[in-house]
Amino acid sequence: MTPLPPKIEIIAVGTELLTPYYQDTDSLYITQRLNDLGLTVSFKTIVGDTTEDLQQCFRTALQRSDWIFTVGGLGPTEDDRTREVLAAALERELVFRPDILDRIKTLFKKLGVSMSAANKKQAYIIQDAAVLDNNNGTAPGLWIEEGNKHIILLPGPPRELKSMFESSVWPRIQSFRSFFLVRRTLKMSGTGESFIESLISDLHPQDSRLNLTMLSYPGQIEIHLTGRSETSEYEAQALVEELRMHLEQRLTPYIFSTSGEELEAVVGRLLTSKQKTLAVAESCTGGLLGHRITNIPGSSGYFVGGVQAYSNQVKLELLGVPAEQVQRHGAVSSEVAGSMASGIRSKTRSDFALAITGVAGPDGGTPEKPVGLVYTALAYEGGIVCERNIFPGNRETIKIRSTQKALSMLLKHLSSPQSGAHPGRKP
Amino acid sequence: MTPLPPKIEIIAVGTELLTPYYQDTDSLYITQRLNDLGLTVSFKTIVGDTTEDLQQCFRTALQRSDWIFTVGGLGPTEDDRTREVLAAALERELVFRPDILDRIKTLFKKLGVSMSAANKKQAYIIQDAAVLDNNNGTAPGLWIEEGNKHIILLPGPPRELKSMFESSVWPRIQSFRSFFLVRRTLKMSGTGESFIESLISDLHPQDSRLNLTMLSYPGQIEIHLTGRSETSEYEAQALVEELRMHLEQRLTPYIFSTSGEELEAVVGRLLTSKQKTLAVAESCTGGLLGHRITNIPGSSGYFVGGVQAYSNQVKLELLGVPAEQVQRHGAVSSEVAGSMASGIRSKTRSDFALAITGVAGPDGGTPEKPVGLVYTALAYEGGIVCERNIFPGNRETIKIRSTQKALSMLLKHLSSPQSGAHPGRKP
Repeated sequence: MTPLPPKIEIIAVGTELLTPYYQDTDSLYITQRLNDLGLTVSFKTIVGDTTEDLQQCFRTALQRSDWIFTVGGLGPTEDDRTREVLAAALERELVFRPDILDRIKTLFKKLGVSMSAANKKQAYIIQDAAVLDNNNGTAPGLWIEEGNKHIILLPGPPRELKSMFESSVWPRIQSFRSFFLVRRTLKMSGTGESFIESLISDLHPQDSRLNLTMLSYPGQIEIHLTGRSETSEYEAQALVEELRMHLEQRLTPYIFSTSGEELEAVVGRLLTSKQKTLAVAESCTGGLLGHRITNIPGSSGYFVGGVQAYSNQVKLELLGVPAEQVQRHGAVSSEVAGSMASGIRSKTRSDFALAITGVAGPDGGTPEKPVGLVYTALAYEGGIVCERNIFPGNRETIKIRSTQKALSMLLKHLSSPQSGAHPGRKP
Repeated sequence: MTPLPPKIEIIAVGTELLTPYYQDTDSLYITQRLNDLGLTVSFKTIVGDTTEDLQQCFRTALQRSDWIFTVGGLGPTEDDRTREVLAAALERELVFRPDILDRIKTLFKKLGVSMSAANKKQAYIIQDAAVLDNNNGTAPGLWIEEGNKHIILLPGPPRELKSMFESSVWPRIQSFRSFFLVRRTLKMSGTGESFIESLISDLHPQDSRLNLTMLSYPGQIEIHLTGRSETSEYEAQALVEELRMHLEQRLTPYIFSTSGEELEAVVGRLLTSKQKTLAVAESCTGGLLGHRITNIPGSSGYFVGGVQAYSNQVKLELLGVPAEQVQRHGAVSSEVAGSMASGIRSKTRSDFALAITGVAGPDGGTPEKPVGLVYTALAYEGGIVCERNIFPGNRETIKIRSTQKALSMLLKHLSSPQSGAHPGRKP
């Protein structure tokens, strides 16, 4: 008989997580990495910085769970109490570690800031705990063995948590692998959730080793597949790949990535491989398109820049959009979108240019040009293509959908067989 | 002696909430409405559809909490077990209610769908529970009194939950209003969490009616204050305002908002009131600064646009940065930042211009110009100011910190008494 898998609990600590404004997101990351080892989470608890409530949660977790991950409450402030309260629950001392204080002091020196007295608190650790180094902040993590239970204290800031998890927690939990788990994500744009569902409704897996989850974001649908095997990664992989193949047969026109890449990364990869350059001209998105493109490391290899043509004056003077065009068709029109794209393309001598102009709202809509009306244009060697859409949602969502549409247009062009072909020239 | 406020716990039930893909959001809504009555949540628990784990959570909640809201697990399927498991935990029977079955049948008839046999399960209620009608679905909610505890079972789909909460829960909890609750948020930039903490360490409230929580984001620190009063909203307000005043005395140079506004909103409000315009020139941020500025509805009133000067060619040709300057000092230099700012200011004839140039990484750093080195410049009627910073963090964080710094520079200028003054002219 194989042993039961461990009961795992994640405790997110912070009074702000009990307000209507904040959600614990760290636990999603921890869950993902545990799932990678075939381990599942049984309980998540969210508790404030109150000593009494924290105590209550630690006692409960110590009774019902074998592995306890705590997140947060390791900072230097008065209301960071995870260490103290857990030490009391375990009836252990807090021990001062001068080497940790030295590390913290060095970190502050590197940043050119003087350490505040409050940080000294972070050099106290729970007796007999192993210290998990923090490469991105002052709070060290702790790994505690209590009987046959493991208690792992992690810092709340995601950057600190992730780096610590990868470098110090992951190597220690490898040996607890109970399943082989393989994931695949299909990312799609250009259609909606119910349409995708109608195309694949008969493909939902009956096999309990397979899971299919569909998620919907503005301008993007994702299908997450997981396959589990007790015997081998190969088997888990084979399960997932068979399902993926069936899905791809139905969904090919909408899929832009099967490896987890964002749309801007896929576009960037194609531009790099084709040695082409890109410029943008953004009105209602104000810079979001360029921001997304430049989120990809190495984007300076293909992205030359662009113009945030928010006012009409900038459209005219920096992009060379004809004043007569704005007057006759309005700034939100296919004509102006096209002129913006060809304007920035010629000014920057880039191979491709994307332009966006629209009504992001909440104000500024009219019966003819309602909130959500957006024109996106692609200019390339062979001409200009333009699309008109009316996007649902609020200002932020409309901005996101607009950039998604613009990137999709470029991707479609880059993926088509005649991409880059001069009109009249054979591909 | 006044009674202690009730301990409130929300239990979200559903195995999907223990995956990396889903978060419980229903609890945010319940929290908000409870807060409106001065009631706060002490614990949130997330648990799957496993009988044993559910049992464990109900037992724990019945021990530590006075009010228990459960969300989800009331559906017709095999893995909807909230009713059954809670009935067992309370040692009560499940009672068949023909009137509920009739309601469900009627609902199906209305939708023109035939009821599945599984739905019959939803007509069983926990003995002595009050039924909360569901106007948007089949699952009725339940309100149970157990000793002096209240247990409220609500359906998971947000539309069903909200409607049931408003029509059946809200009227019943009105009389429990035990506190008046007032919130205030101080938002700060330009310094770090530990430094803020050191300035206010003696101001952490001892009064249990007050709560102070500090949160840290890239380039931004927030202090969230809540004040509670048993007698009046006025008293809660007075408590919070007194603490806020003390905090402001220490923190004035760093505070940019006491009303929850984002930095870009505060800057926008000041530009609007002073009737000034703004342009941007962005290198390493690629458009994020303009994106943030245009997230504010009405920003077209003061934001004219800008140039995403990612390549050197665009810096030279669209902004007029002297080639000699780039050659001598490099694109990441105070000289180029200044020229970018004055360049876009004169091209757009705007009152203010912000420019950013830096090394966002992960590649491209050198010993003299490491990853994180960022120059931000503000050009205005009276000249140019420039700041040099080395920001910690990854590419995304460095981009955020850079825009935060640029906006802070403008805010500082707009807030200073001589703002907008012509050199040589008396303010």
